[in-house]
Amino acid sequence: MTDSVTGFAPASIGNVAVGFDVLGLALSGVGDRVSVRRIEGDQVVVEEVLGLDGEPHPYLSKSTDQNTASIAAKALWDEHGRGGLGLTVHKGVPLQSGMGSSAASAVAAVVATNGLLPEPLPTAALLPFALEGERYASGGLHADNVAPSLLGGLVLCPEALLPHTVRLPGPDGVSAVLLHPELQVNTAHARRLLRKGVTQAQWIEQQGYLAGFVAACYSGDVALIGRTLRDVIIEPQRAGNVSCFDAVSRAAEGAGALGVSLSGSGPSIFALCPASKATNLATAMEQACRGEGIDCQSWVSDMNAPGAYVET
Amino acid sequence: MTDSVTGFAPASIGNVAVGFDVLGLALSGVGDRVSVRRIEGDQVVVEEVLGLDGEPHPYLSKSTDQNTASIAAKALWDEHGRGGLGLTVHKGVPLQSGMGSSAASAVAAVVATNGLLPEPLPTAALLPFALEGERYASGGLHADNVAPSLLGGLVLCPEALLPHTVRLPGPDGVSAVLLHPELQVNTAHARRLLRKGVTQAQWIEQQGYLAGFVAACYSGDVALIGRTLRDVIIEPQRAGNVSCFDAVSRAAEGAGALGVSLSGSGPSIFALCPASKATNLATAMEQACRGEGIDCQSWVSDMNAPGAYVET
Repeated sequence: MTDSVTGFAPASIGNVAVGFDVLGLALSGVGDRVSVRRIEGDQVVVEEVLGLDGEPHPYLSKSTDQNTASIAAKALWDEHGRGGLGLTVHKGVPLQSGMGSSAASAVAAVVATNGLLPEPLPTAALLPFALEGERYASGGLHADNVAPSLLGGLVLCPEALLPHTVRLPGPDGVSAVLLHPELQVNTAHARRLLRKGVTQAQWIEQQGYLAGFVAACYSGDVALIGRTLRDVIIEPQRAGNVSCFDAVSRAAEGAGALGVSLSGSGPSIFALCPASKATNLATAMEQACRGEGIDCQSWVSDMNAPGAYVET
Repeated sequence: MTDSVTGFAPASIGNVAVGFDVLGLALSGVGDRVSVRRIEGDQVVVEEVLGLDGEPHPYLSKSTDQNTASIAAKALWDEHGRGGLGLTVHKGVPLQSGMGSSAASAVAAVVATNGLLPEPLPTAALLPFALEGERYASGGLHADNVAPSLLGGLVLCPEALLPHTVRLPGPDGVSAVLLHPELQVNTAHARRLLRKGVTQAQWIEQQGYLAGFVAACYSGDVALIGRTLRDVIIEPQRAGNVSCFDAVSRAAEGAGALGVSLSGSGPSIFALCPASKATNLATAMEQACRGEGIDCQSWVSDMNAPGAYVET
């Protein structure tokens, strides 16, 4: 019987501009790792939370009920496991970055924990457990980071359809570029600041873009992605909190982006673009961000990046 | 040179429950005919408006600027035609039925008029002219009846993307049933009664259904159509105006409907269902309607019904 398992889960872009709370996209090349091992007793405990430098993370809690990794792992373990479980969290996703950091920890934890079960569940069946972690972090059942981090690619995941989700085909020849400026935005706080209502005209306009974007993904209509990758409701309320947003989005548009918006509640900014333009577009976004006096890093990802997996 | 042309344009289901103002579906077997002919002078005139019985229609105006057929025909003729134009409108779609009656007249008129032009336009290029007629009838640029009536099938047509529209694949094995109870609802009046705002929660729920429905059409996921064909915002505000709505929708659900809602602003009620159940479902809806003391008729249509055409 295996005694320890390590799971990896990617960062993700929540909302993807056009689908507030219902659409998410997995990223390549950046994510969290969680290792789990059997321990004495019958508790689920966080043994270590380590940063990218391998040192104990300065901010994240090791209390089982205050860490999205352990909350999610415990939800799964309490229902299907037996004995004690010890977690080590290796944070690779920056905190409060709008890159789905809390979701990546929760997903990596359930994927690893699943590997210790006598009868592991199918990946999709892990979603409700990972969502328990996310519920703690964001205060609601938003699957737009958890679902793509678990399942990979572009995922439609309206709360009203959960646990059912729909993997959308990422259109060929399109890439995602994500820029993370060295700023922080608290997701739960950012949600509380949003207006609670929208006008009928805003709702109709926004849902038209979302429906068109979904159609564009299936039909591979890249021009239609460019016409529909828009957020007329949430972005105008949030962009002002990210001082480099205007400069970075102008730079992305100048470099050929199909659309630009905040990733989740920000501060990260993402663009979709023709794959051939992605590297130069990332450079242009970084230069614009540094031009505003803010350090940053960026990643380029295709639209069908893999979801979480067990490392062997 | 041809001196007269007749165009046919089908009735249609506006909104299709899940896509208020952005989605429409063409119907088979019911529509309007408009015949146009060259006449002396340089005016566009309505010569006759006839009902199904071939007698002059008791309600519709023959004033060029008060009939959607002549408004639409004139918009096209003024830009591309020369001389005088006389229209005869054969109404096949009941008035104020929620079946896109005004749109069918406008579309049939532009399709016929196009046939008299020295260089006829491609069908899709007729949309803006037909919309001029609809603007008169409904007070806005809503293409959800005009676009399917012109182009056929299931059409995504958000105002923000016009004149671009997206024909969605109607899923194989699914049919539409439309029941027209002998009641009338004025569309423009019905619009004015709607609340001007929605909550954030309603918007997010509804756009999730719409996005899922579009995905279901492309992927042919009939079960997903059943989970997403819902209207949580508009239907609750309008269903109370249609006294037979509850009885008819219960009957449709009992007979295997994937979803039931108002067609446009009603009073017509439509259901999507597996094609094999369509005939019995129509019978069940009719029985329920008559059980409420309201006479009615119904039509069964596939999801890829043809759009408007010139009759030869």
